[in-house]
Amino acid sequence: MVVILKQKAKKEEILTLIQWIKAQGIDVHIVEGTSTTILGLIGDTSLVDEDAIKANDIVANVRRISEPFKAANRKFHPNDTIVDVCGKKIGGGNFQVIAGPCSVESREQINKIAKDVQASGAGLLRGGAFKPRTSPYAFQGLRAEGIEFLIDARKTTGMPIVTEIMSAAHIELFKDVDIIQVGARNMQNFELLKALGTLNKPILLKRGLANTIEEFLMSAEYIMAGGNENIILCERGIRTFETATRNTLDISAIPLLKQLSHLPVVVDPSHAAGITSLVEPLSKAAIAAGADGLIIEVHNDPKHALSDGAQSLTPEQFDHVMNSVKRMVDFEGKTL
Amino acid sequence: MVVILKQKAKKEEILTLIQWIKAQGIDVHIVEGTSTTILGLIGDTSLVDEDAIKANDIVANVRRISEPFKAANRKFHPNDTIVDVCGKKIGGGNFQVIAGPCSVESREQINKIAKDVQASGAGLLRGGAFKPRTSPYAFQGLRAEGIEFLIDARKTTGMPIVTEIMSAAHIELFKDVDIIQVGARNMQNFELLKALGTLNKPILLKRGLANTIEEFLMSAEYIMAGGNENIILCERGIRTFETATRNTLDISAIPLLKQLSHLPVVVDPSHAAGITSLVEPLSKAAIAAGADGLIIEVHNDPKHALSDGAQSLTPEQFDHVMNSVKRMVDFEGKTL
Amino acid sequence: MVVILKQKAKKEEILTLIQWIKAQGIDVHIVEGTSTTILGLIGDTSLVDEDAIKANDIVANVRRISEPFKAANRKFHPNDTIVDVCGKKIGGGNFQVIAGPCSVESREQINKIAKDVQASGAGLLRGGAFKPRTSPYAFQGLRAEGIEFLIDARKTTGMPIVTEIMSAAHIELFKDVDIIQVGARNMQNFELLKALGTLNKPILLKRGLANTIEEFLMSAEYIMAGGNENIILCERGIRTFETATRNTLDISAIPLLKQLSHLPVVVDPSHAAGITSLVEPLSKAAIAAGADGLIIEVHNDPKHALSDGAQSLTPEQFDHVMNSVKRMVDFEGKTL
Amino acid sequence: MVVILKQKAKKEEILTLIQWIKAQGIDVHIVEGTSTTILGLIGDTSLVDEDAIKANDIVANVRRISEPFKAANRKFHPNDTIVDVCGKKIGGGNFQVIAGPCSVESREQINKIAKDVQASGAGLLRGGAFKPRTSPYAFQGLRAEGIEFLIDARKTTGMPIVTEIMSAAHIELFKDVDIIQVGARNMQNFELLKALGTLNKPILLKRGLANTIEEFLMSAEYIMAGGNENIILCERGIRTFETATRNTLDISAIPLLKQLSHLPVVVDPSHAAGITSLVEPLSKAAIAAGADGLIIEVHNDPKHALSDGAQSLTPEQFDHVMNSVKRMVDFEGKTL
Repeated sequence: MVVILKQKAKKEEILTLIQWIKAQGIDVHIVEGTSTTILGLIGDTSLVDEDAIKANDIVANVRRISEPFKAANRKFHPNDTIVDVCGKKIGGGNFQVIAGPCSVESREQINKIAKDVQASGAGLLRGGAFKPRTSPYAFQGLRAEGIEFLIDARKTTGMPIVTEIMSAAHIELFKDVDIIQVGARNMQNFELLKALGTLNKPILLKRGLANTIEEFLMSAEYIMAGGNENIILCERGIRTFETATRNTLDISAIPLLKQLSHLPVVVDPSHAAGITSLVEPLSKAAIAAGADGLIIEVHNDPKHALSDGAQSLTPEQFDHVMNSVKRMVDFEGKTL
Repeated sequence: MVVILKQKAKKEEILTLIQWIKAQGIDVHIVEGTSTTILGLIGDTSLVDEDAIKANDIVANVRRISEPFKAANRKFHPNDTIVDVCGKKIGGGNFQVIAGPCSVESREQINKIAKDVQASGAGLLRGGAFKPRTSPYAFQGLRAEGIEFLIDARKTTGMPIVTEIMSAAHIELFKDVDIIQVGARNMQNFELLKALGTLNKPILLKRGLANTIEEFLMSAEYIMAGGNENIILCERGIRTFETATRNTLDISAIPLLKQLSHLPVVVDPSHAAGITSLVEPLSKAAIAAGADGLIIEVHNDPKHALSDGAQSLTPEQFDHVMNSVKRMVDFEGKTL
Repeated sequence: MVVILKQKAKKEEILTLIQWIKAQGIDVHIVEGTSTTILGLIGDTSLVDEDAIKANDIVANVRRISEPFKAANRKFHPNDTIVDVCGKKIGGGNFQVIAGPCSVESREQINKIAKDVQASGAGLLRGGAFKPRTSPYAFQGLRAEGIEFLIDARKTTGMPIVTEIMSAAHIELFKDVDIIQVGARNMQNFELLKALGTLNKPILLKRGLANTIEEFLMSAEYIMAGGNENIILCERGIRTFETATRNTLDISAIPLLKQLSHLPVVVDPSHAAGITSLVEPLSKAAIAAGADGLIIEVHNDPKHALSDGAQSLTPEQFDHVMNSVKRMVDFEGKTL
Repeated sequence: MVVILKQKAKKEEILTLIQWIKAQGIDVHIVEGTSTTILGLIGDTSLVDEDAIKANDIVANVRRISEPFKAANRKFHPNDTIVDVCGKKIGGGNFQVIAGPCSVESREQINKIAKDVQASGAGLLRGGAFKPRTSPYAFQGLRAEGIEFLIDARKTTGMPIVTEIMSAAHIELFKDVDIIQVGARNMQNFELLKALGTLNKPILLKRGLANTIEEFLMSAEYIMAGGNENIILCERGIRTFETATRNTLDISAIPLLKQLSHLPVVVDPSHAAGITSLVEPLSKAAIAAGADGLIIEVHNDPKHALSDGAQSLTPEQFDHVMNSVKRMVDFEGKTL
């Protein structure tokens, strides 16, 4: 950590600051320049509070040098984490496609789609039971009943199921879910993250719309700090000035996350683009950039879907996309 | 609502779509252009699902014309809402300053700051008991004990207290809090919003870092739809490309929110800028733009604050800012 | 074009507006709703001024339905444009890699790099002679002499040369350049675009840092409206809140631009990421998403480069990237 | 400047780097930490090329400590610059309102508006002769004839005139213009900035849509480095994800620019918001935040304006806004 002092800083004030820092078990080196003095902090600065230092009158700025995340950091865990979901592996050369409707609408619907996407090559089934909707007047999901229908579809197909949680109060309802998804809007719902950290179940953590890569990894760290290290990171587009697509898929996040962390990274091209015709090229790009999996929306009747129909593929379109996906995964030497 | 059809749309497909829309009790007018056909939907379209229409193969785009919020809409509620907190009024010409530390750190600290900010003219006391921190290793707040200390400071000073909730599971702990704050990261934590809608207590709703003004009002609508109409909106800066300030205060949001909604709007210049020297000019600008109140961070010892010291004012600095604030509120003809 | 009227609009005001629109040769259909009236404008609305209509007191909003670009529009020109640069083809299944240093620094340097990148498979040589630098105190390029050195490197290698223009006043100096590049900062330098529209020479148009895909195509339209239809579009990253990368590569722009326009699209992974280790994954992703070419920075001695060393590959690194690029181009069935 | 080295950096590589930096006349202090080594660079680092250092294999990151601008820096020029335009002063407690139409449309129009805005209290007249329009098919301005009409309006009213330049090739046409405006799209048209640096005429420099405050000041520095120190900075809104307003007025930029630089700062509420009803509150907020002037669009017939009618005030609306502006300027103790 580097502390840059203001020009006007007095000798005695600087000494007081240094003593305060040293009292935290951190060593301090002074670099006196012609117009500025900087302090180099040496030791484990992960627990030093930047804000407390910045609050000092004589401090112009503080720069952190080492990453603030540990459990998620590849430096301390060089090998890829492989998340194993009932035998379906994600990461370390293993690739999975998670597919299904935005919302679970009925037992028949989810069973039908599950069979369709499995036939096309999807390994896991997704479907929303609890739905985060911008409007209180929009369909909010079948909730507990939706999870029941997903479990039923798992019985029929053998596919592990992925569904989103919106509150720690619902954890009991998710005990038979295979992967619990944390949506973009809850990426910094820290009370929820802490609760998920106590489980022994894979978590699919989606990046928030306006969250940096560092904040994303810090949210993974929240869960891991609680003891649950089965995290799958999901890039799903960030919010920018561009309105031609629903969000802007941050393709660079894939290789960057893989460099910074050992956790597997999957991509959601459906939510990122919000346009069905972009699902195929974005899926291919994600694989080429190093993704470990995809999560794709498929609905047997998109125009009558109760949510997000605009970005859902029909089973036929999904089958077509899967042909490209399989070829590209194979080209990249990964196992689907 | 206007539905723009694709060029290739066939007569029979258009008729099917129209029938499906009409089945929802909405009337449809057709406008046939040289290259495009558009449908004008007439009636109460607030319950029509845009996504379901967009999912139709022949639909190029859907444009909503009327705002999707109702309870929060000034059109249906022309007079300013005045939120009354134990006699302290916000809105409708009444202005309040809410001040206090980012985190409650001890009984002595919060009592000391409460007296200081009250002496300078603050009407309400803020202080974080539950703290949303990016890092799991940072100070997370005194939690229940922090609320107890706030209540103690209220006893001493008579100031109503404002503090942030992070989970619906904690609502019982907030029963003696005067205003419950929803932080930026939880603006779309819909399960929390629904729970707060069942209370009979003012809610200070902060705008999310990447949320539009419409989404902000829809989150207020979530709480109001549950029956709790005591909402105070809080603009606290949005995330943009500019890094010179912590966030970018969206000053235009103040007059826009006042035009679109009847709810009072307060501004948090401390979090918006993250720089103490900007608190005064931004406070003045907020009042000039029509704000109904301010929420300002004050700490008796910012450099030893356990969170966000960098943006906290000392009581002396706050007293100085309050002189400007009082003059500006008076100039604007409002009552502090 | 759809015009949404305000609720308070009076019959006579509406009639006046309709007459004014009809006077421009546009037909108008009225759709009267319960709370809003909308006007559907029918005919060639590309010359109708949205702002003039919006300025009308009774107008709430105006929505354009058809794209405002024509020459660049795939609707009116379904086949891919193939830009032929001295026999090197870009577009329509033809792929090219443009490589070279950020700045031309000396005759020896550019000749050396040209041979190196050619040996690795690059088809065209890039190098900056006129350099847009944020600081007036930074190296501004060798200017005319830099172009001379590029021409010399073309003699040696036979590679067509690409270099950036910063002012229409310099056009004469570019008469022997094969492709003139318009940089991101000049994407809306309309006087420059108009001047380039009068030439008969390929233009590589880079997307501005904060420009939408529609504005990007409108800038291409500026050049094409002047008669020069040899445009190559270049996605090079947009400015967002994320600071882990220099810019955010908008990967979705590639398939979207290819859907909306017939012009070839190349990608600049070097400027988008600003990190050498991301050049390979982003290059592969770009090809997988449908790009027609790449433009990559290569410097024989990045640490002594006079500009942008941080993102330049060494010739060895470039050779390694080209192995991946060749395989991926081949996989996509394109010709390098 | 602080250089942060990678963990893997070897002793000999570090020494080579230090020697290379020292060869540029900069002293280097080494701070060896447990996991990272940092170098503190001491001396005038404004000419050191960050990119060249970053390109070094062993460098993880480079942080600049002192601002890269000098002529525009308040540190070296503590007193406010006052720009004097034919007796109308801007800065140092002097406030000016610049008003007029987006485009000059005819001699009569500009004369009429000039008299109107002068009667309401505007000190300078603005009007576009050369118009930067997104579409090549939109009205591009009366160009030379427009400037002639502005000069005519100056004769009638005595008001100094402000108009936008789009190319250095047009400078001769601007010889009788009192303030030359550089538009947002040309803020980094460096060839234009250099040309304006050689003039002895005030320049109104608008901030680019996606440019940071530091880049803004560096563009001022370009002009000042050429010898022309009569710069007026103009904040006019930045591009963000929010679409409710045309752009997002960055109100914090006003006090920040005033702290960092001695140059006067004016605000353009018309372009920032794009909504006439926001012009008054944003004008007041700008004054409260410390602005030295305003630039406001006024059109006698906004609905028939040839550009940007949507955001133009009528003379009556402008007169009403000026009443608020005068009171607020007076309240702030400035001279209009």
